[in-house]
Amino acid sequence: MVAPSLVADLVGVAVFAASGASAAIAKRLDIFGVIFVGVVAALGGGIVRDLLIGAIPPFAFTHWIYIAVPIAASAILFYFHPQFGRLRRTVLVLDAAGLGLFTATGALSARAAGVPAVGAAIIGMITGIGGGLGRDLLTGEIPYVLRREIYAVASLFGAVLVLFLAWIGAPRPINVAVTAASVFLIRVVAMSRHWEAPTPPGLS
Amino acid sequence: MVAPSLVADLVGVAVFAASGASAAIAKRLDIFGVIFVGVVAALGGGIVRDLLIGAIPPFAFTHWIYIAVPIAASAILFYFHPQFGRLRRTVLVLDAAGLGLFTATGALSARAAGVPAVGAAIIGMITGIGGGLGRDLLTGEIPYVLRREIYAVASLFGAVLVLFLAWIGAPRPINVAVTAASVFLIRVVAMSRHWEAPTPPGLS
Amino acid sequence: MVAPSLVADLVGVAVFAASGASAAIAKRLDIFGVIFVGVVAALGGGIVRDLLIGAIPPFAFTHWIYIAVPIAASAILFYFHPQFGRLRRTVLVLDAAGLGLFTATGALSARAAGVPAVGAAIIGMITGIGGGLGRDLLTGEIPYVLRREIYAVASLFGAVLVLFLAWIGAPRPINVAVTAASVFLIRVVAMSRHWEAPTPPGLS
Repeated sequence: MVAPSLVADLVGVAVFAASGASAAIAKRLDIFGVIFVGVVAALGGGIVRDLLIGAIPPFAFTHWIYIAVPIAASAILFYFHPQFGRLRRTVLVLDAAGLGLFTATGALSARAAGVPAVGAAIIGMITGIGGGLGRDLLTGEIPYVLRREIYAVASLFGAVLVLFLAWIGAPRPINVAVTAASVFLIRVVAMSRHWEAPTPPGLS
Repeated sequence: MVAPSLVADLVGVAVFAASGASAAIAKRLDIFGVIFVGVVAALGGGIVRDLLIGAIPPFAFTHWIYIAVPIAASAILFYFHPQFGRLRRTVLVLDAAGLGLFTATGALSARAAGVPAVGAAIIGMITGIGGGLGRDLLTGEIPYVLRREIYAVASLFGAVLVLFLAWIGAPRPINVAVTAASVFLIRVVAMSRHWEAPTPPGLS
Repeated sequence: MVAPSLVADLVGVAVFAASGASAAIAKRLDIFGVIFVGVVAALGGGIVRDLLIGAIPPFAFTHWIYIAVPIAASAILFYFHPQFGRLRRTVLVLDAAGLGLFTATGALSARAAGVPAVGAAIIGMITGIGGGLGRDLLTGEIPYVLRREIYAVASLFGAVLVLFLAWIGAPRPINVAVTAASVFLIRVVAMSRHWEAPTPPGLS
């Protein structure tokens, strides 16, 4: 497996944990439920990616810092959420950053493990959206990825971009940064302008 | 892994994609949500099968046609569903064909990977029903496999049948065809005659 | 993989199957749905554990008795549940025993497969709670593990305990028995005294 850029990766983990913890707090779960959903949101995408590319045991289980960070982030959000309440928009924005980052590293990891480009792009998307999907299934929401906003498709665009840039020889750190920034921008603009994809024609 | 009969396999993929896309359209998801659910329904069972038998990365990620077909099928259904509306029964019927086909190839793949017969039968059933289960969990429905119709048990019957026929030496193409046809018939008859399995005694 | 203590392990399988079958009966599912949910509840945690530690194909698929026992247990519960109705408390109590047992063997299996201690503890917890999580997702309930009772954290405590006892050299059978008993006691006391973990501060 490609060694991830640790700090950036852990920022993504913490941000996704915060998104999961926020959803669990909104459901009035207790401290353990909040941490549980936070950890699933933070690590779910990466664990599924590792299962798909045969990186066994998954990275998160062999590096304790990947478990400690989302536990700490979820616990902090649990106790300080009133102060964080106004920061809801911030969490959405950070989630967009995490989505881009995880998509980029997930697609590159899959490619490095020998998965062909189309499959690697899909695995990149799964890495990016997997944790949020787990969070939504656990809390009984229709998954965010299915709601009327540009989400999965922003991730898929990022996965294609990062593989293209790698193919033309872009250095990894620059490639990941450019890709994460692109996904981030698409998400933020889509949210602020309420971009919506077409819905089924002919339904009243 | 056993090389699947490509055309038949892709028909199954397209049919399951159509079932997923139909469910997503009924939930008023947008074009990307419809494609997402369609792809999960088409590929979910096979991906879980490959994880269980150690075929890593899963077949769907190394053969782009397996991703292109459900995307195309879901997009076509999205734009033309009014015309397909009357074909709902047809989709159900095709779903029955896909169920039989995926069950048969899934059980044979597991057996070829060295899984004992009982386990291979269960893996065949998981291959057959897995995509529909993912579709139902994503769209917030009580899974089809749990509703009062002969579904999982038709698949399990097919898995046992295909392994038995393989054991007595039936050639693979004939075996898969006979098994898929048997599961198909059971499903179609169960639906048309509203066969129901017993429900718990003593509940008012 | 560590050879599990067969009888104890099958008791855990049967007990979890009973918990899944009970949930399915309460949802008025038919006989096949009841068996399906029972088998998922019984085997789900162990299958995910085996995927995570690379024990492919998972143990349950290579030992038919692991499939036969939950089918039989679910079918018995289906037909005799009125008599078992008063035993609901008993099922909860047995579920606590299964939770402790699966947590202990899951954590030891992960450690034996070379997973570091923190990851092995998490895998132990996943083994213990995984089946119940699948059961709750299938039947459309907010997962038990997220409700306001000491559940996942009792499992996590057990996982840490069993790894600590193994580290200081405790013989495996004694270690598993002590750990399972500890988790069991925590769960039973938490249920009888309605222990609850803190809920988010500041929410009216």
